Amino acid sequence: MSKDIRRLWLPFLSADVPAKCDTPAKVAEYELKLGCEALGLKMPALRVDAALGEGYEIEGDAIVGGERGLLYGVYAFLMARAAGEEPPTGAQRPFYGLRMLDGWDNADGTIERGYSGRSLWFEGGKLEWDGARIRQLGRLLASVGLNVLCVNNVNVGDTEARLLEDALPDLAKLADAFRPFGVRLMTSIEFARPLAHGVGTADPLDAGVQRWWRERADAVWAAIPDFAGFLVKADSEHRPGPFAYGRSHAEGANMLARAVAPHGGVLVWRAFVYNCKQDWRDTATDRPMAAYQTYAPLDGQFDDNVILQVKNGPFDFQVREPVSPTFYAMPRTRLAVEWQLAQEYTGQQVDIYAMNPMWREMADDLPPEKVYAVAAVTNLGRDDNYTGHPFAAANLYGFGRYAWAPKVSPETVIRRWARLTYHLPAEREDALVRLLMDSRGVYEQYAAQLGIDWMVNPHDHYGPNPGGYEFDVWGTYLRPTRDAVGIDRTSKGTGLTLQFPPEMRERYETPEACPDNLKLFFHRLRYDYVMADGHTLIQRLYDDHFEGCARAEAMADTIAGLGLPEPDRSEAMERIERQIQNAREWRDVVNTFFHRLSGVDDAHGRKIYD
Amino acid sequence: MSKDIRRLWLPFLSADVPAKCDTPAKVAEYELKLGCEALGLKMPALRVDAALGEGYEIEGDAIVGGERGLLYGVYAFLMARAAGEEPPTGAQRPFYGLRMLDGWDNADGTIERGYSGRSLWFEGGKLEWDGARIRQLGRLLASVGLNVLCVNNVNVGDTEARLLEDALPDLAKLADAFRPFGVRLMTSIEFARPLAHGVGTADPLDAGVQRWWRERADAVWAAIPDFAGFLVKADSEHRPGPFAYGRSHAEGANMLARAVAPHGGVLVWRAFVYNCKQDWRDTATDRPMAAYQTYAPLDGQFDDNVILQVKNGPFDFQVREPVSPTFYAMPRTRLAVEWQLAQEYTGQQVDIYAMNPMWREMADDLPPEKVYAVAAVTNLGRDDNYTGHPFAAANLYGFGRYAWAPKVSPETVIRRWARLTYHLPAEREDALVRLLMDSRGVYEQYAAQLGIDWMVNPHDHYGPNPGGYEFDVWGTYLRPTRDAVGIDRTSKGTGLTLQFPPEMRERYETPEACPDNLKLFFHRLRYDYVMADGHTLIQRLYDDHFEGCARAEAMADTIAGLGLPEPDRSEAMERIERQIQNAREWRDVVNTFFHRLSGVDDAHGRKIYD
Repeated sequence: MSKDIRRLWLPFLSADVPAKCDTPAKVAEYELKLGCEALGLKMPALRVDAALGEGYEIEGDAIVGGERGLLYGVYAFLMARAAGEEPPTGAQRPFYGLRMLDGWDNADGTIERGYSGRSLWFEGGKLEWDGARIRQLGRLLASVGLNVLCVNNVNVGDTEARLLEDALPDLAKLADAFRPFGVRLMTSIEFARPLAHGVGTADPLDAGVQRWWRERADAVWAAIPDFAGFLVKADSEHRPGPFAYGRSHAEGANMLARAVAPHGGVLVWRAFVYNCKQDWRDTATDRPMAAYQTYAPLDGQFDDNVILQVKNGPFDFQVREPVSPTFYAMPRTRLAVEWQLAQEYTGQQVDIYAMNPMWREMADDLPPEKVYAVAAVTNLGRDDNYTGHPFAAANLYGFGRYAWAPKVSPETVIRRWARLTYHLPAEREDALVRLLMDSRGVYEQYAAQLGIDWMVNPHDHYGPNPGGYEFDVWGTYLRPTRDAVGIDRTSKGTGLTLQFPPEMRERYETPEACPDNLKLFFHRLRYDYVMADGHTLIQRLYDDHFEGCARAEAMADTIAGLGLPEPDRSEAMERIERQIQNAREWRDVVNTFFHRLSGVDDAHGRKIYD
Repeated sequence: MSKDIRRLWLPFLSADVPAKCDTPAKVAEYELKLGCEALGLKMPALRVDAALGEGYEIEGDAIVGGERGLLYGVYAFLMARAAGEEPPTGAQRPFYGLRMLDGWDNADGTIERGYSGRSLWFEGGKLEWDGARIRQLGRLLASVGLNVLCVNNVNVGDTEARLLEDALPDLAKLADAFRPFGVRLMTSIEFARPLAHGVGTADPLDAGVQRWWRERADAVWAAIPDFAGFLVKADSEHRPGPFAYGRSHAEGANMLARAVAPHGGVLVWRAFVYNCKQDWRDTATDRPMAAYQTYAPLDGQFDDNVILQVKNGPFDFQVREPVSPTFYAMPRTRLAVEWQLAQEYTGQQVDIYAMNPMWREMADDLPPEKVYAVAAVTNLGRDDNYTGHPFAAANLYGFGRYAWAPKVSPETVIRRWARLTYHLPAEREDALVRLLMDSRGVYEQYAAQLGIDWMVNPHDHYGPNPGGYEFDVWGTYLRPTRDAVGIDRTSKGTGLTLQFPPEMRERYETPEACPDNLKLFFHRLRYDYVMADGHTLIQRLYDDHFEGCARAEAMADTIAGLGLPEPDRSEAMERIERQIQNAREWRDVVNTFFHRLSGVDDAHGRKIYD
C-alpha cells in the first residue's frame, strides 16, 4: 500500500485495490468484500445484467447492474451503509452519459492552475505514475461515477502532442490502469499538429489534413479500443485553430469528429474564444459576449459526435456569473457544461469554497436536459490528500454526485461527504456542513460581492488587485472612477442582456430587477446608488468586505472545534489562517481602493486605510 | 573572425585581436598597427613607463604609459584620429581607480534584467564563451578604460557559488581571456555559503566562518593572482546576510574584507537594504530612507578595502531620483556609486535613453571626489550588436568615459560615440546627437514626469501600470486619491529631506522650492496645486503625457532621416515603432488613470479615454 494514500471519503476501504483486479467486475467484487468486512455487513450477491450499462439496482441482498453499473452499485451500497443510511431503492442511472474530468497536467509534471502538488501521472516529460496511487484514484472516481479523464492540459505542448504518437504505448498502459474503474481516457490535442509532420497546412478542409487525423485516430483506437476522444482548445488564448484558414469552428470540429467517429469517439470542442488582445480603450467589445457571438450562429452545423464544451458562465470560472447565454442559444448542438474544481479564482484550495450549491443554482436556472454532458477541470495532485485542502475533496466527491444527478441537494451531498470522511458527532457534523454550505458566500462576500469579478491579482489570480486588469488585454474591465464602477451590459450598454431568453433578459436588464449578487456584473452604478435595502452602493461595498472578513475569521473557531483527525486538523487550521490573511487583505485593499476613489467614509467609522 | 561581431564604435579595427596577444602590451601593439593601417596614419612609437600605471601621455609621435596606460593611450589616439580630432595632450589619468561593470548573468545563460540576449560567458550551468567575442568585448571595454568585470549576478545561486570552488579553473581561464585587455574579474558571492560546506553558521564573528572565507580567498588568488575581489548583496530582497546573526553590515563586510586583504582584493558591499515585505498600510516606513538608516550610523567602521556600493538614488535605478543622501553621510567610508546600464526601468533597450546627461547631473550635485569608485550593471548580451538597441552601445561607451572623467561633457561623449560609430554628414550627426541628448527627457516626460516613479508594470518594469504597486510589498507607493497624489517626504512627512545636507534639504523641503522634476518625488500634491508656470498639477500631468508621446513620435522621423547603415537602421526603426506604442500606452493609461480619479477634463479637449 503506497504510504501516502489517505482514504478521503472511503476510509472503510483500508487496503489498496490489487493490480490483479483488472476488470470492473473484479474490482466490484474485491471492494464489496473489503467493505462488507470492514463495516460488518452481510455481502450482497453481484449479478451482471449487461443491458443496464452504467445503471444498477440494489434489490434486497443482491446488486444487479451492467459491467460498470455493478461497480457503481457496490460503491453506492457501501457508502450508504457506511453513512448509516439505506441504499437507494429502484433502478439507478446517471443523468449524464459523459461525466468528465479534465486534467490540466503538463508532461513536465507541473499542473496549470494546480494547487495540490505535481501531476499524478506525468513526470520528467513523460507519463509516469505510482500504480497504487492511480488505483486509489480510480477507486475515488468510480465511487462517485466519473467515467472519463482527459490526461493533459488543453494548452498542448510538443511533448504532450506525442501522447498520440510515439508515446502512445505509455498512454495505452495508463488506459489499462484506469479501465478496471470504468474510467476511459481522453487527451487534449493541438489543432495544428499536422504541421509538425510535414503536412504543410492544418486547414480542416484539406484532404491531407483530414487523412492525417484519420490515420492518427486509427492508430490511437488500435492501441486503446475504448479511448474516449479528443479535447480541443482552438483559436483561444494564442492556440492555433481553424480561423487561421478562414474556416468556422464547425468546420474545424467536424473534420476531427469524422476522424474519431468510426471508432465511436467524441470530439470535445471548447467554446472559449474571445479577444485576448483587447485594447482597453475599446468599450464596444465585451468579452462575456464572445462565446455566444462565435457559436450561436453555428447551431445545427456540428456533427453528432461533437460536444461543444461551454464554460458555466460567460466569463471564465468567476465566483459569480450568470449562466452562459450560449446554453439557451444552441438547441441543435450537444453541449457540455465545463466547471473548474481547481480553485483558480475561488481560493486556490487555501480558502474554503464548496461548489455544490453553485452547481445546483445553475441546475435551477437551466433545465439539466439542456446540457448533454458535464466536465470539470480537476483539483487533483500528488499531495497526500490529493486536493491540497482536505475539504476540497468535497468538490471532487460532489462533482461526481452532481454529474450523476444534477438536481441533487447540495446539503445532502456535503453532509454525506462529511460523514463518510470524518464520522463526527451530530453537532460537529452540522457545524462542518454549515461551514461548507456557507463557504462560497463568505468568499464571495470579500472577493467578488455584487457580481464584481476580476478584482484579483492578474497572473496568479489569488488575492485582491482591484485595478489590476484595467489597462490590460484580457477584456476584464470594471472602469472604476471617482463616481461609479462597473460595465453597463444591458441593451443600452454592450448588449449582453440581449443574448439571454426574455425572462432572464428582463431579470438582468434593470438594476432594480437584477438580483444583488449580479448587480455589478450587468450594471454600471454610481457609488450613491441606493440598493433595495436602503444602503448606498459604496456603503454596501464596505459592509460586505467587513462582514465577509469577519465571517472568515469566525470559520477558524468552527474548524478548531470540529475535532478533526490529524493531519486534516493541522492542514485545515494552517489554511484557515492563510484564508483569514487573504480575507483581511481583500477587505482592506478593496475598501481603500473605493475610499480613495469615492472619498466617502464608512458610515460606521470602521478602519479604512489611507 | 566570429561572424556576429560588429564593430560598434571601433569600425576601423576590422579584424579580431588574435588569441596570441596575451598581454596588454601585445594588444596595444597589435591594435595600434591595425588602426594606423586602416586610418592611414603614421604609427607612433610605444614606450612603457611602469610608473604611469593606468595613465598615459601622447607626445608627438610616441605614446608613453604604464602597462595598461599604454593600451588606453593607443585607443585614445586611434579614436581621436578616427574622429578627425587631435589626441588629448598632457598626462592622462583616470579619475576613479576602479571602473567596474557588474554582470547580472546567471550560470544557465540567462541574464536578470538583460535586454540584449543571453550571457556572453555563461551557458548550460557553467562558464562557456566564444573566444573571439570575448576578445572583442575586452577590446570594447579597454577602449573606454573599464577595468573590472563582475561576472555573475548579485543574486547568487548554488551553481554560481561554485565559481570559487570546483569551477575555479574555468574562472581562471576567463580571467586569462580578459587580462590582455586590462580587465580584472570579480565575482558575486553568497554570504551564507559556508553553510553549504558544513561550517554550521555564517556568523561573521565565528572563527570557523572566518577561516572558511580566508581559505577560499587563498585558493582564488592562488588561481588568479590579479583577481579583483568579491561583490556581496546581503540581507536584501531575501538574500542571506549578517542580520541573521545579529551582526552589523560593517561586521559582515569586514570579515570578508580581511579574507581578501592579504591578496590586495577589495570587498564590494551593496548598500541596498530595505523592507521588501512592507505592509502597504504602514505609512511610517519609507523605502528611500532605508539605505541611509542602515549605513550612515556605520560610517568609520568599515575596513579600508571595503567599498560600499550605493545606488545613485535612494530608490532603485528610477528615471528621476535625487542623489542618494547616503553619499553625503559617510565621509569616512569608501563609497562606490552604482548605475544601471541595463535599462530595467528606463526603456529596456527598446526605448532610447542615453545616460551621460544623467551621470553629469549627479556629478554636478555631488563632487566626484565624494565617490571612490563607479560601477554599473552591464547592458551586454549575446545579440550581434551586444546591447540590443544599437544606440544603447552609447551608454557602454559613455560609462567608460564618465568613469574616466566624471565631469566630461555629455554632448562631447555622445557626439564622439556617434561619429566613431556612424561617420554621418554633419547635419545628420547633429540630429543624432540631439536625439540622444533629448532621449532621457522624452522618456521621463511620458513615463516618470515630475519625479513620479514606480508607475511601471510590476515584475517586468516596462510599460505603464499606475496603480500596480499600490497594495504590494515593495514600499513603492504613490497613494493616489480623487484629490491628490504622492508621498510627503519632507520633515512634516516621512522625513527623507532631513537625511540631506542643509542646502539640499532646503531645496526639497517645500513644493515651491523643489524643482519640477522632483516635485512628486518629495511632495504629496493636490491636483489643483498650481505649478510655477501657472498650470495646475492635473493639467501638467496631461500636458506632459501628450507632449512626451508626441516627441517620441517625432523621433521616428529623425531616425528615418539619419541614413544609418544596416542592420542598425532596421533595428532602430523597428524599436522606435515599439517605443512609440509604449509612449502612447503611457500617455493614455496615465491620463485615463488620473482622469478617472480627478474627474478633471483636459483644458485643450484632447482625447482622454474613459
